[in-house]
Amino acid sequence: MIKLGNLEIGEKTHIVGVIPGEKFLKEVTNTTIDILELRIDRFDNLEPNFLIETIKDLRKKTTLPLLATIRRKEETDFKPPKHILSEKERLNLFKQVIPFVDGVDIELQAKEIISPVINFAKGKKKTLIISYHNFKETPGNEKLGIIVKEAKRKGADIVKIATYAKNIDDVARLMCFTYQCSQKPLVSISLGKIGSISRIIGSVFGSCLTYAFLDESKNGQLSIKELVDTINRIYERR
Amino acid sequence: MIKLGNLEIGEKTHIVGVIPGEKFLKEVTNTTIDILELRIDRFDNLEPNFLIETIKDLRKKTTLPLLATIRRKEETDFKPPKHILSEKERLNLFKQVIPFVDGVDIELQAKEIISPVINFAKGKKKTLIISYHNFKETPGNEKLGIIVKEAKRKGADIVKIATYAKNIDDVARLMCFTYQCSQKPLVSISLGKIGSISRIIGSVFGSCLTYAFLDESKNGQLSIKELVDTINRIYERR
Repeated sequence: MIKLGNLEIGEKTHIVGVIPGEKFLKEVTNTTIDILELRIDRFDNLEPNFLIETIKDLRKKTTLPLLATIRRKEETDFKPPKHILSEKERLNLFKQVIPFVDGVDIELQAKEIISPVINFAKGKKKTLIISYHNFKETPGNEKLGIIVKEAKRKGADIVKIATYAKNIDDVARLMCFTYQCSQKPLVSISLGKIGSISRIIGSVFGSCLTYAFLDESKNGQLSIKELVDTINRIYERR
Repeated sequence: MIKLGNLEIGEKTHIVGVIPGEKFLKEVTNTTIDILELRIDRFDNLEPNFLIETIKDLRKKTTLPLLATIRRKEETDFKPPKHILSEKERLNLFKQVIPFVDGVDIELQAKEIISPVINFAKGKKKTLIISYHNFKETPGNEKLGIIVKEAKRKGADIVKIATYAKNIDDVARLMCFTYQCSQKPLVSISLGKIGSISRIIGSVFGSCLTYAFLDESKNGQLSIKELVDTINRIYERR
C-alpha cells in the first residue's frame, strides 16, 4: 500500500486542497480535505528559508499530509506562469523543500531534472508522484499506457495524468482507461470545461486523488465544497 | 438513426419521465423532460378503454413521445407488484395500447410473449425497447454482451440494461461496458443506492436514456430536477 504521510492511498479517492500562493495559507482551515499541495511556483516569495518556515508553520496548523509541487512553466495551468525558473533553479528549490514535506510531484516531461529529483526524493523516503500534463488533447489509449508504464519504470508511487478533453468522449475514454489500468494508484483528470466532471466521477473509476483549489475562484474548477459533498455522497452509497 | 416519435435517439441522453399510475398524470407539466413512459402495470384501472382515453388525453396535453411499459411482475422495481397479470393478460394489454403510443418496452426474459409483442409492435411501426433487469447483480461483461446481442437479434431498436450494483466497481464496469459497446443505442442503469449516480453519468458514457419518476418520492431515485440540471450542465460544457 502506497502511503503519503500517514494516509493510505488508493482505497478511496482523497481530496487534495491546492494552495496556490502564500496568501491562501490562511484558508487552510478546511478539515474536509485529505491532503494539502503547496503549489510553490505560485508563491511570490521563493526564498528557501521562507518556504521552509511556511511548511513548518503549516505542520503546526494541520496534520494533513503535505505535497510539494513546483510546476514546470510549460505545464502550468496558470497562464502566464508567475516565475520563469530555469530547471537548475527548480531542482535547487526541490532539494530545499523535499525534506520537509511528505511527497513531491515531478513532471515526466521534465527531462533535465526528473532523475535527480526522483533520486533525492527516494533518498529522503518521500512519496513520489510523476505527472503528465497535456493541454491540447487526450492522447490515445496506447500512448496513455506508455506514459503510465514509463512513469512507473522511473519509480512513481503514484502516476498522475491530466489531459485536455475536447469532448465528452475524451472524458469517458480517460475514465475507462483509468478503470481498466492495472498500474494503480493512478490519478486521472480531464482538463477543460467539459472535463471538470472527471474531478467527481474519477472517484467511481479508480482515480485516487482529486484536486481543488483553496482559492475557489479559479475558472473551470469545482469548489472544494462541491467536490466533497458529491464524492461523499458516492461513498456513502457504497 | 432510431426515432421515438419525432425524437432522434442517441445523439444525447434523453430524460424519460415515468408515470407510475393514473394519479401522477396531473403532474405531466414538466417541460424539461423529453419522453413520457406510462408504467401501465402501476395503474389501478387496467380497462383498455380507460387506458386508451388516458393516452389520447395525454396527446392533447403534450407533444412528448409516449412509451408504454407493462412491467413483468418478476422484473418490477416496485415490490410487491400492483397486479398479478398472467402473460396472456399482459399480451392482450400490449395489443390494446401499442397502436396509440410511439414505443414499447418488452423484457428479454418474457419468453412467453416477447415474440408476439415484437411482431405486433413492428407491424404498427413502433419503436421497440428490449429490456433486461437483474436485481441481484451486474453480470460479467461477457454475459452483458450476450444480452445485448440477443436483444438486437430479436429486433430491438434500443436495448436497455438495468442491473444491481453491489459496489462502485459494478457501476464503473457497466459504464465502461456501455462506452465500449458497439451496439448502440443502449440504455444502461446501475440499480440500487450505489448505482444511482449512473443515472447522471450514463450521459457521459453513451447511455441514450435516463429515467426519473414523476413521483419524486420514490426511494433511491434521483429527482427529475436533479437529473435535468446535472445532465444539462454536462451538455452545456460540450
